[in-house]
Amino acid sequence: MNPGVQPVEIVRVGAGPDVPGRDVAAAEEPLEIRLGGTPFVVIMRTPGADQELAAGFLLSEQILRSRADLASARHCTDEDGRDAPNVLNVWLAGEAVERAAAALAGRRHVTASSACGVCGRRSIDDLMEGVRRVDSTLALPRSVVVTLPSRLRAAQKTFDETGGLHAAGLFDDTGSLVAVDEDVGRHNAVDKVIGREWLAGRAGLSDRVLFVSGRTSFEIVQKAVVAGIPIVASVSAPSSLAIELARDAGVTLLGFVRDGTFNIYAGAARLTR
Amino acid sequence: MNPGVQPVEIVRVGAGPDVPGRDVAAAEEPLEIRLGGTPFVVIMRTPGADQELAAGFLLSEQILRSRADLASARHCTDEDGRDAPNVLNVWLAGEAVERAAAALAGRRHVTASSACGVCGRRSIDDLMEGVRRVDSTLALPRSVVVTLPSRLRAAQKTFDETGGLHAAGLFDDTGSLVAVDEDVGRHNAVDKVIGREWLAGRAGLSDRVLFVSGRTSFEIVQKAVVAGIPIVASVSAPSSLAIELARDAGVTLLGFVRDGTFNIYAGAARLTR
Repeated sequence: MNPGVQPVEIVRVGAGPDVPGRDVAAAEEPLEIRLGGTPFVVIMRTPGADQELAAGFLLSEQILRSRADLASARHCTDEDGRDAPNVLNVWLAGEAVERAAAALAGRRHVTASSACGVCGRRSIDDLMEGVRRVDSTLALPRSVVVTLPSRLRAAQKTFDETGGLHAAGLFDDTGSLVAVDEDVGRHNAVDKVIGREWLAGRAGLSDRVLFVSGRTSFEIVQKAVVAGIPIVASVSAPSSLAIELARDAGVTLLGFVRDGTFNIYAGAARLTR
Repeated sequence: MNPGVQPVEIVRVGAGPDVPGRDVAAAEEPLEIRLGGTPFVVIMRTPGADQELAAGFLLSEQILRSRADLASARHCTDEDGRDAPNVLNVWLAGEAVERAAAALAGRRHVTASSACGVCGRRSIDDLMEGVRRVDSTLALPRSVVVTLPSRLRAAQKTFDETGGLHAAGLFDDTGSLVAVDEDVGRHNAVDKVIGREWLAGRAGLSDRVLFVSGRTSFEIVQKAVVAGIPIVASVSAPSSLAIELARDAGVTLLGFVRDGTFNIYAGAARLTR
């Protein structure tokens, strides 16, 4: 099977009765890149071309400059000699060793991008840190779920004239929009809308639904978990790790909410008729 | 005017003659967040809700936990007392000070996410580091540009059964696909396809066109610049900073390539009839 996808059990919701079924989700797993044995970076990625990803990333970071800079790039093996598919050991040569040492020394540290919830997590072990189950009795009618895309779009129209902004909205259980934010980065839009409620003194978000305009990654579900939000929905697809985290943390995860239908990936019990 | 958008001069290309015009692009600028005066993180974001973004990000990072943790969050002022709109000073209180100190001490350093080319850039000054003009005589017929989306989709169909993967393809000037990669992260797909060519010994990409399935951010153009790729195109919108960088670095930037039309944001001279 293609390593880029993972099978997943879902429930399809439409006009008729719910239909349990199987689907595939884009595989998302953390890759830890080590330089000379020292953890350098964790990238959330789709497995399958790890050497290529590491080479391109290190080129872009200008640690690799010429072919001679790269001695080898191989997955680690554990004590029993088995491959650790999510840890890649890169060995450098020449001046690249010094550039890597300078980077590792912390000249550039604790930084993020437009889509960076796992930034600052140096090792894979840190990734699930702080993940606890979301505690909420929120229930959401199926009939409200299908209205969320148009409600978010209506709010977004006011701002987005560019075709280039992602939106994140918080809704209550009647489908009323409580807050909305937009950003070039999907994760930023989520940070903004959660931060907006927090700054306004509404720290508990256990009665809120987070609806996002893009795909749902691990990091978006992680932000919801930390904020205590029990339901996350999107017009698009969730990744494999987003589904896994939602199930572990007791979050209801809905995807492909469009044209009156959607898929349930986790937490079906919160949906009512 | 909405701070989330910036006006931009473009050229619209369709069946008839090229039409110069004005459009708006989603604003993208770096925000440097300082904790107690020390640079902590640079996030590429759309300006306009910086306190909200910082609060949400620091909540997600679990540096902020209760309202008492946040003393203040204000934009810096420069020596002349003017606001520095891209630097936000966050002052913490209580145990949050210690959590920030631990993070700053490098417990978690040099890390990235699924979309993280600027990860590892601690200050705004570092962002444009290594940006030099792309040197290439590549010319690309307009008639080839409009075929790129369907060529990329045809390659993507093989892999993407999920609706959740981004694709990046390298093409030659006849529109032949040279290499393609997919990933849950847009930036990863670009890193993979550039890394793939580099590992295969094809370091010079000055005769290649990079076509991406998603929006074009600063980081995607930056990766193209570092790799020496002279033409970047997308089915979707570029950000304001992507356009600015493309113009500074001599990259041809095309957007909204769909249904036989597209917009030219930079470098029109490389397009032939």
